[in-house]
Amino acid sequence: MSPRTAMGRVGTMTATHDAPAGNYRIVGTRPVRPDGLDKVTGRAEYGVDARPTGTLYGHVLRSPHAHARIKRIDTSKALAMPGVQAVITAADFPKVEHRVIQTIRGPIPIEWTREVLIASEKALFRGQAIAAVAASDPHLAEDAAMAIEVEYEVLPAVMSIDEAESADAPLLHDPAFTADVPGLFEPVNGRQTNRARQLEIKLGDVAQGFAESEVIIEREFSTSSAHQGYIEPHTATALWNQEGHLTIWTSTQGAFGVRDATAPLVGLPVSRVKVVPLEIGGGFGGKLVVYLEPLVALLSKKTGRPVHATMSRTEVFEASGPTSASKTRVKIGAKRDGTLVAAEVHLAYEAGAFPGAPVPGGARTALAPYDLPHHYIEGYEVVVNKPKVASYRAPGANQAAFAVESVLDELAEQLKIDPLEIRMKNASKQGTRRSEGVPHGNVATHEVLKAAQDSPHYRSELHGTHVGRGVASGYWFNGGNDSAAYATLNSDGTVTLVTGSVDIGGQRASLAMQFAETMGMWYEDVGSFVGNTESIGFTANTGGSRTTFATGWAVYEAAQDIKKQLVQRAATIWTVDASSVAYDDDGVIRGPEGKQFTLKEIAAQLSATGTQVQAHAAVKPGGVGAALSTHICDVEVDVDTGKVTVLRYTAVQDVGTAIHPSYAEGQIQGGAVQGIGQALHEEYVYNREGTMLNSSFLDYRMPVANDLPEIETILVESPNPGHPYGVRGVGEVPIVPPLAAVANAIYDAIGIRVRHLPASPTLILEELLARDGK
Amino acid sequence: MSPRTAMGRVGTMTATHDAPAGNYRIVGTRPVRPDGLDKVTGRAEYGVDARPTGTLYGHVLRSPHAHARIKRIDTSKALAMPGVQAVITAADFPKVEHRVIQTIRGPIPIEWTREVLIASEKALFRGQAIAAVAASDPHLAEDAAMAIEVEYEVLPAVMSIDEAESADAPLLHDPAFTADVPGLFEPVNGRQTNRARQLEIKLGDVAQGFAESEVIIEREFSTSSAHQGYIEPHTATALWNQEGHLTIWTSTQGAFGVRDATAPLVGLPVSRVKVVPLEIGGGFGGKLVVYLEPLVALLSKKTGRPVHATMSRTEVFEASGPTSASKTRVKIGAKRDGTLVAAEVHLAYEAGAFPGAPVPGGARTALAPYDLPHHYIEGYEVVVNKPKVASYRAPGANQAAFAVESVLDELAEQLKIDPLEIRMKNASKQGTRRSEGVPHGNVATHEVLKAAQDSPHYRSELHGTHVGRGVASGYWFNGGNDSAAYATLNSDGTVTLVTGSVDIGGQRASLAMQFAETMGMWYEDVGSFVGNTESIGFTANTGGSRTTFATGWAVYEAAQDIKKQLVQRAATIWTVDASSVAYDDDGVIRGPEGKQFTLKEIAAQLSATGTQVQAHAAVKPGGVGAALSTHICDVEVDVDTGKVTVLRYTAVQDVGTAIHPSYAEGQIQGGAVQGIGQALHEEYVYNREGTMLNSSFLDYRMPVANDLPEIETILVESPNPGHPYGVRGVGEVPIVPPLAAVANAIYDAIGIRVRHLPASPTLILEELLARDGK
Repeated sequence: MSPRTAMGRVGTMTATHDAPAGNYRIVGTRPVRPDGLDKVTGRAEYGVDARPTGTLYGHVLRSPHAHARIKRIDTSKALAMPGVQAVITAADFPKVEHRVIQTIRGPIPIEWTREVLIASEKALFRGQAIAAVAASDPHLAEDAAMAIEVEYEVLPAVMSIDEAESADAPLLHDPAFTADVPGLFEPVNGRQTNRARQLEIKLGDVAQGFAESEVIIEREFSTSSAHQGYIEPHTATALWNQEGHLTIWTSTQGAFGVRDATAPLVGLPVSRVKVVPLEIGGGFGGKLVVYLEPLVALLSKKTGRPVHATMSRTEVFEASGPTSASKTRVKIGAKRDGTLVAAEVHLAYEAGAFPGAPVPGGARTALAPYDLPHHYIEGYEVVVNKPKVASYRAPGANQAAFAVESVLDELAEQLKIDPLEIRMKNASKQGTRRSEGVPHGNVATHEVLKAAQDSPHYRSELHGTHVGRGVASGYWFNGGNDSAAYATLNSDGTVTLVTGSVDIGGQRASLAMQFAETMGMWYEDVGSFVGNTESIGFTANTGGSRTTFATGWAVYEAAQDIKKQLVQRAATIWTVDASSVAYDDDGVIRGPEGKQFTLKEIAAQLSATGTQVQAHAAVKPGGVGAALSTHICDVEVDVDTGKVTVLRYTAVQDVGTAIHPSYAEGQIQGGAVQGIGQALHEEYVYNREGTMLNSSFLDYRMPVANDLPEIETILVESPNPGHPYGVRGVGEVPIVPPLAAVANAIYDAIGIRVRHLPASPTLILEELLARDGK
Repeated sequence: MSPRTAMGRVGTMTATHDAPAGNYRIVGTRPVRPDGLDKVTGRAEYGVDARPTGTLYGHVLRSPHAHARIKRIDTSKALAMPGVQAVITAADFPKVEHRVIQTIRGPIPIEWTREVLIASEKALFRGQAIAAVAASDPHLAEDAAMAIEVEYEVLPAVMSIDEAESADAPLLHDPAFTADVPGLFEPVNGRQTNRARQLEIKLGDVAQGFAESEVIIEREFSTSSAHQGYIEPHTATALWNQEGHLTIWTSTQGAFGVRDATAPLVGLPVSRVKVVPLEIGGGFGGKLVVYLEPLVALLSKKTGRPVHATMSRTEVFEASGPTSASKTRVKIGAKRDGTLVAAEVHLAYEAGAFPGAPVPGGARTALAPYDLPHHYIEGYEVVVNKPKVASYRAPGANQAAFAVESVLDELAEQLKIDPLEIRMKNASKQGTRRSEGVPHGNVATHEVLKAAQDSPHYRSELHGTHVGRGVASGYWFNGGNDSAAYATLNSDGTVTLVTGSVDIGGQRASLAMQFAETMGMWYEDVGSFVGNTESIGFTANTGGSRTTFATGWAVYEAAQDIKKQLVQRAATIWTVDASSVAYDDDGVIRGPEGKQFTLKEIAAQLSATGTQVQAHAAVKPGGVGAALSTHICDVEVDVDTGKVTVLRYTAVQDVGTAIHPSYAEGQIQGGAVQGIGQALHEEYVYNREGTMLNSSFLDYRMPVANDLPEIETILVESPNPGHPYGVRGVGEVPIVPPLAAVANAIYDAIGIRVRHLPASPTLILEELLARDGK
């Protein structure tokens, strides 16, 4: 256990405990993850390690303009270079009939699934792919890409929500083309704009609510784009064989997602595409999208050779999807005793060049920690000449929570109520009506706030000048969806367990633990492996905090099946009725007259007594349990330089049952740090022409270990009744509170309400100058 | 369809047909195999293509002596060479307690599983591994192996059955060491010898049988060692990580076999060893054994790097296992009308340096085509200073059949009965008592002989001088054993089908066809894949002609499970009772009131209506159906040079239902050609010191395409009642008849009974000289 992990754990439905949890043998312990040593010793195979015999290297030519019409592409000089094997442009992709298709964030014209990947008539952001080259070495491929001549007609770039909505803004997308997509671009005041996909949520009577309120606070906020910042860039290798079977090796959060996205783009049925997910060096939502896969696939089709491509860091920044910049307005009304009565939330998110911003993620979580009987939430997205945004950890929720939790802080101050107390007073609970009118399921808002109040951090006193403390809460749904598992009992009594869930945060371990717990066997006896799309049933992406929950259900079901088969086998061997045989929790099969088998004993007899024992399970579980989180942040502000230093940070979270507490803690620490990065450091900086000015890790400032104190974690374990081991998702929600927690702490330190993030030194100095005139 | 395939097919239980078979849609057709184009275009990944990042190259130092005591091994000079990373000897393998373990051919001391792989105290054949080196390039590894100093005390080599059994023969194995292995080396006439594992089979009263016989013929025969001659040499790559997990990429007939053989040798439980079977360039039984895998595994353990090794052709000849040389004696008694009454069969097989010769395969098949009420079969093996033999297509059967079928030919001639007629008169059938006293199951001896008699070949006349025709029959059990299958229904209505059976002869196709037939879907919609030991349940080796039968059962069961699930789902969607829904043979699910779903329609609805649909099956089927084969061979003998030319060759075989007739024909053609090779060309030639003199494809004479006519095939389809599609094994039995068929044809051509094979030009000339004195 590293010194950076776990501080404490609070049981709600089970007693406080260290390990294992409750009545469990394995759940709640902290075994070593199976992939750990391979990863730190360089033996693990990542995307860049995929080099089938005869591999060519791909390089992508990208638009240098944020907005430009493509008038001509001449690839002849590139193709003439010795060693260059192929060049592709958008024209090489199969043509599709114009029609509207569904995506998880609404309907779009099918052409855009390709256009976002490689531009045909118009480049809509700097970094958009224009062409791609395959050559015998990577440097030659890059040289060849430079030799491609592209004639552009540069158009004015639209670089912010305000610009995009201004009356004279150029339209990114032709209204005639998008007219048949319901609700995509609806006219605003009779005028076609860059605004897309309006969303409204209502509960109660907002006007009446504000009329009943004794205090009302309304504020505007904004945030910048930030990147997920995974250390491993996007990488993909493809081999398209002569029979039209395509194999892709890649770094992804979901092999089936890559398969299902790539197949239609390159004109293959899904069953002709095999995706092998190699180890992943971070995803955080950004590796749910295909960027390189279809390009290398078509290059392989053209050359008949495997083709590999890896993005540079600049390409990752400019050509993959960051989170939305946002502009929000929140109005909250309360009684003098702190009872919240009404709220209005307006959310505008940047989508990048194509619609797809996480507006629902913001709108549906913004007020979820609270019982707010009257509220109105409105959200929409605007298209701008920037890369299309992608998911990023609790997508959309942190921008909205920044606004709501800042206003709540101001309200608490004005009403002279402790900021945790006002949240506690209005905490949502099971049955509280939510935005959609649907009541909350089991949600431990109160327990988390109580644990925060009781924490050593919150009970400690602050010392020093320009020092302050802030708190904030956050909510995330968590996910369910399809998962498959396949388990084989080996002759030595060990089990080989295959699932389709890419392992990002320790899933191999958390799944093997649930399997071992169910079987009454040891964790070390379960080999836990990630399958490819040919070796395991359909499994949705690792994301949305669904894997330990949903794939956990799958391994539980598979284990139950194996137990049933073993009971039957034991009965056959003993020639007794199966009803007189039981598989006990300690992994021993017991029959009449003291007959018994350990798992290893019966495993050794399988071959001689019948068929081998395997089981598979395919699940799509309901019973998802939401996550609630409250963070406490202490900062010190250097008023001379504007630098904000986080002095102490505690994240309290309902994790359901912590299957492997270290990995739950790790997720919380990682999420908190990413949120702090967005609060203090990280932003996309563009010039007027739409060129990102800080597209490297030297200039794009991610917090590193010595920027931060140890992130303290308090695990509140309120088991999810919808899961055999009480699992809730863990990974998303910790990124939600930090933005407001940091901003509230800055206010507490220097009396300045920061309403734009990141609160960079420049911004802090400007605010100080504006207030103090010096 | 290549011009070298199918000539005709004869139905027995179904009517004569071209394709598809009987009432089937898919079974009996000839679709393209999924791996074909990849293999011929170089895209398929074979063992030599496995090169994980940082791979080192292994080279094995082998004994230059056939029999020698190892007095000292000095690896210091090799280890001092820059770039050399590790050297291993037998001393690097984990020590094991001396005990006796079971193998498929009987008990042996556990130490021998390692000793056969790498010698410790004594080298028992030239080519036996002594040490292995890992270095940064393959040439350096070879140089380093040469730099290892080994001091030998050379011992006299025992190179034949006669030598091994002579009174003054040196003993290969210390009797004190093998004393505790029951039945391994039993004293002969009170004297310890190199003879091992005596086997006796009795039926009826042999003495009485011969007393009742009116004609008795007794002859002695012998055959030479021949190699399987797979074009791809043995190759293996291993990566042993720091946590003690071992991954092996290799060319094998069975990934689980490699896992289960390697794990105990290197001291790991099976669950810590993952074996990835890459494409295989021929096996024929010879790739059921581990030669390089444990060596590269330990080299990887020592170096922490992946280690790859590939044998040279000379290494393949000298250090992998050929088939047994044999010495046999057969005595058959018959009535004047051709009724067989009694038989005595004596079989002695060379084992190579360690016991393990396929004596049971010879003893249990020799007389199986016939109803022979009184018989006695005795077999044993002898150890000699040659590589340990391995399985080779119907192991042991062809040596025995050569003897029995030659004597039958002589008997027919003497009794003036057509050689097919005498076989027909005595043909075994269902219920005929077999050697072991167990009655025959369904066996189509009569139908095969009838088809041979009716064949255009047998009805044709011979023309020319020194031209002759021979016939012979053969029998093989075929195999059952464990198989697993895992099938996933994709959203586009296609299926991904994974099995554990390495694809040698077209199994991907024959399994997908059975699955598609069961589902009422198209072959092209089934993706058929071979899993590794981590992605599929335990599956026995591809060999013994078991795969299309047993793994076919597994895919049939998996398809039935999927159909059941789909009926249930359709009922749920239609809100009707499942009992009113049926999955029809045409792949359409039909419910009440004309409701129906095609497979593609319901597949598209799975995601929205519940879980995904997958199924697995683990089987170990009984109901194995034996194979019977009769071959007809015309030869011309050049009496000046001794060269024998095969003019025409027809193989008639009961293949059960031919799932994919082209691949059944291909197996028959391949087996026949290998048998002809053993009859005319192939042999291990040794000098007095035990050095093989022809250890390259230049000197070891395998028949090539222009040595042979087209092998005509006649498929007799007598469906196996023990399989849902009537499958019998196909691949083994065609190697059984050719040895005798060729020898009998030579007699017919020049009147000389060849009783040693191969009938090389030298041997023919010697026989002619002996007879004619010129």
